[in-house]
Amino acid sequence: MLTHHTIKTLQSLDKKKFRQKYNLFLVEGNKIIRELIQSAFKIQAIYSLNPEEFNVYDIEIHAVTEVELKKISFLQHPKDSVAVCVPLSQSLDSKPKIRLVLDGIQDPGNMGTIIRLADWFGIEEIVCSQDTVDFYNPKVIQASMGSFSRVKIVYTDLSKFLSDKDIPNYMTDMDGDNLFSTDFPSVFNLVLGNEGNGIRPLTETFAYRKISIPRFGHQKNTESLNVAMATGIILGQIFASREN
Amino acid sequence: MLTHHTIKTLQSLDKKKFRQKYNLFLVEGNKIIRELIQSAFKIQAIYSLNPEEFNVYDIEIHAVTEVELKKISFLQHPKDSVAVCVPLSQSLDSKPKIRLVLDGIQDPGNMGTIIRLADWFGIEEIVCSQDTVDFYNPKVIQASMGSFSRVKIVYTDLSKFLSDKDIPNYMTDMDGDNLFSTDFPSVFNLVLGNEGNGIRPLTETFAYRKISIPRFGHQKNTESLNVAMATGIILGQIFASREN
Repeated sequence: MLTHHTIKTLQSLDKKKFRQKYNLFLVEGNKIIRELIQSAFKIQAIYSLNPEEFNVYDIEIHAVTEVELKKISFLQHPKDSVAVCVPLSQSLDSKPKIRLVLDGIQDPGNMGTIIRLADWFGIEEIVCSQDTVDFYNPKVIQASMGSFSRVKIVYTDLSKFLSDKDIPNYMTDMDGDNLFSTDFPSVFNLVLGNEGNGIRPLTETFAYRKISIPRFGHQKNTESLNVAMATGIILGQIFASREN
Repeated sequence: MLTHHTIKTLQSLDKKKFRQKYNLFLVEGNKIIRELIQSAFKIQAIYSLNPEEFNVYDIEIHAVTEVELKKISFLQHPKDSVAVCVPLSQSLDSKPKIRLVLDGIQDPGNMGTIIRLADWFGIEEIVCSQDTVDFYNPKVIQASMGSFSRVKIVYTDLSKFLSDKDIPNYMTDMDGDNLFSTDFPSVFNLVLGNEGNGIRPLTETFAYRKISIPRFGHQKNTESLNVAMATGIILGQIFASREN
């Protein structure tokens, strides 16, 4: 049975303040939890409708009822299990590589989708400005579909990170060069900006090249593409040229 | 003032049954409504916090309070206005062109995003199976960000539509040919399948070629890309080759 104290603690984990206080975050759904068990993340406890599904000896597993699961889940339609996990302290590899850099992305769904794209295209590291949405936010975790356990995500001062002169910074910009006629080197940073305001001026000063996805439609009212979609199209283009 | 009858009628428009019964659908937000006024869609009435913003003589405009707007809006955070509009009866152009074909897409957000992509890439027509989510669904309308007024959307029997031997059907498939080494002709259909089940077997019998977005990451657990994201990456690739 779930105590009132446990329910209150787990419910508080939708707020960054409490995730930091308890050093915990939640992950929902057997499929993702099973992947997590294979990862570097430590799971403190699992609350499950089907505890027998987890054949592990070193994790506390608690059977819960549907009513109890509903109380601790952040989903409108709770899945089968909730895992209480410990955040990983991550740091960047010293080896230069293609990295995504997020400058103030705010929407958890966009962040989760970008993590999933990174995983798909084999990008191992994402560097975020300090004000980018917290990646342990339950909506980010859920939107990433388990990819968060396979991509390293580090929050840092972007001005410092982007000032490395050996690695060119490609930035998305409404008036940038045409993506489809841009060649990318083997190592670079791809910088993506905030949903409403784009890349901030200070970050922009570190741009090696600005790129833009051309609009082929002739309708002037068309909204610009969402940042996660833009990331997908740009990565597609980058890896297409690696392929041929 | 809004009558109880009006509120009840407008609220019912979140259901396809009532949209068909009244032959009406809702559009929210001044920006999109202003674009609609320029389009072929007929607006029956506008309910607005700022009626003076609409300088039109042939549309009923009603001032409403925030409390009233909340009662008729489908959004969690209602915008400034709600327009009551009449669906357009649309039919395909006789001229062959690149078309998107949706085989049972269910998620309104995916449908809206695909409409927005079509608008961006200048694709004028989307052909949907009868069981694809209704494009007048308020969530589709909202996710399309106004693009729905610039792209023609037609529901039809796909078996009949795809059987035209002059136009090759390219279909997404987990085991298809590599997108990045596929050449596309000047006219074709790009067929996209249901979120869970993909393209149905009957539709597949009309495939000229199956294509797939290769996964560059080496992590076997990675979820396949969402159908809207896949559409964006494929369209990027198709139009990249048109560009160079």
